[in-house]
Amino acid sequence: MKSVAGSVWNYTFMGKTSPEDIRFAILTVSDRSARGERADLSAPALQQAVKDLGQVMHTAILPDDYHLLRDTLAAWADEGHFDVILTIGGTGFTPRDVTPEATLAVIERHTPGLAEAMRTASLKITPHAMLSRAEAGIRKRTLIVNLPGGPRAAVENLDVIRPVLSHAVQLLRDDSAAEQGHHSAKA
Amino acid sequence: MKSVAGSVWNYTFMGKTSPEDIRFAILTVSDRSARGERADLSAPALQQAVKDLGQVMHTAILPDDYHLLRDTLAAWADEGHFDVILTIGGTGFTPRDVTPEATLAVIERHTPGLAEAMRTASLKITPHAMLSRAEAGIRKRTLIVNLPGGPRAAVENLDVIRPVLSHAVQLLRDDSAAEQGHHSAKA
Amino acid sequence: MKSVAGSVWNYTFMGKTSPEDIRFAILTVSDRSARGERADLSAPALQQAVKDLGQVMHTAILPDDYHLLRDTLAAWADEGHFDVILTIGGTGFTPRDVTPEATLAVIERHTPGLAEAMRTASLKITPHAMLSRAEAGIRKRTLIVNLPGGPRAAVENLDVIRPVLSHAVQLLRDDSAAEQGHHSAKA
Repeated sequence: MKSVAGSVWNYTFMGKTSPEDIRFAILTVSDRSARGERADLSAPALQQAVKDLGQVMHTAILPDDYHLLRDTLAAWADEGHFDVILTIGGTGFTPRDVTPEATLAVIERHTPGLAEAMRTASLKITPHAMLSRAEAGIRKRTLIVNLPGGPRAAVENLDVIRPVLSHAVQLLRDDSAAEQGHHSAKA
Repeated sequence: MKSVAGSVWNYTFMGKTSPEDIRFAILTVSDRSARGERADLSAPALQQAVKDLGQVMHTAILPDDYHLLRDTLAAWADEGHFDVILTIGGTGFTPRDVTPEATLAVIERHTPGLAEAMRTASLKITPHAMLSRAEAGIRKRTLIVNLPGGPRAAVENLDVIRPVLSHAVQLLRDDSAAEQGHHSAKA
Repeated sequence: MKSVAGSVWNYTFMGKTSPEDIRFAILTVSDRSARGERADLSAPALQQAVKDLGQVMHTAILPDDYHLLRDTLAAWADEGHFDVILTIGGTGFTPRDVTPEATLAVIERHTPGLAEAMRTASLKITPHAMLSRAEAGIRKRTLIVNLPGGPRAAVENLDVIRPVLSHAVQLLRDDSAAEQGHHSAKA
């Protein structure tokens, strides 16, 4: 796998996957963690939480920089090595929170039901869930999902979409539809 | 009524409407049904389901082709013969599913509450409802609503918005507001 | 404070605020009220309802005119005198309802959770809540929230987001994140 944003990343490989496994990438978005001022506890928690769904192929920590986030998400999706990119953090109201904007800039197809379901479930825990600006969408064959910052909130939100992730990835990988389109074009 | 996309359609006329009736068009989006490989059971089920709300003036089956869907939805709305266009299918995660994108390309005003309400209600039946990427919105005086594929899911989702459809159409037809704008411009 | 749209407004000053107070502006959107044909009961009701959250610094009544609404919302946010702009009305299905479109045209960051939460709560009162096309988002340091027309509906919807408004404004005013970005750029 090529390195997209070079030395900015602290990245990790975690071996091969079986065909049924979801290939995840986790992108932690945090100024402080990117500067090494705060340990990133969210990515390890999430890595643990997705163990039964597939493999985390790659992790990285980036600062809350719109252009860097946008270009990294686009490159990761375009490489085609990940089925699901989970972002952590940068979804709130401070001026530096731009993860949703970077996500919206690169997705080709919006998947509003995932973010709605996460917020609806989180609202039962705290009214502050309505301040989450998380988005989700598809670029090529990769699903990008914004999760809130903090290990507990990130895992709680993942748990909401957990029951549908395998089916979602199966549909994203589907080549039969594309083939049908080919036939259709000839017809 | 002029034929917009010509011979692609298999269309049906179902007579005149009274002023209170909602004039529906139903657009089934399916590669297989468009090629005649699979019977379209969803449109007839939906036609039956909207009987007490108004008249289905027109039905068509189109493949999952972004440009064709976009141009057809725009033309149907611009013709002004339909109050509500119900699309069926093409709202999922496979690479061919582009009905929401075609819808977003032609609507002038978003109506997010309809899609949210349908997903919220469907989530009580199955978690897979969060994979619906359905959108809804207004072009000129026509409301376009995406429904999921399959007779049961399509009708279940219609039933969620059924209580508000007549009032929605009444508001869309409202000329008093436009007249007020005219007076306002003179004032 | 400069007058942005001049004599169109009927505006009011309500004194100084303490640092914890939210500085509100209220924009009533109504052709009839703008022409003086109908008393605006919603803004006074809302003014009363936000008393314990902060100060209403400014109120205005404008007709349902897309360009006027868009330019006014942008100017109010850019002036930086208001933490929260509450709009009332113009969120429905009639051809003149364009408050959400004017809002979407000026916000830089979408806050979908606020509108979703308001609709979800309103749906428990009436199915017609799903016809609300209300949007919410951030421009610079100002949060813009669309509320439905009518005193009762406006206050009911405000009450849904009331528990999070102070925290939202605190985050919007946050300069620490911006400073961190500055340090980060130097690092």
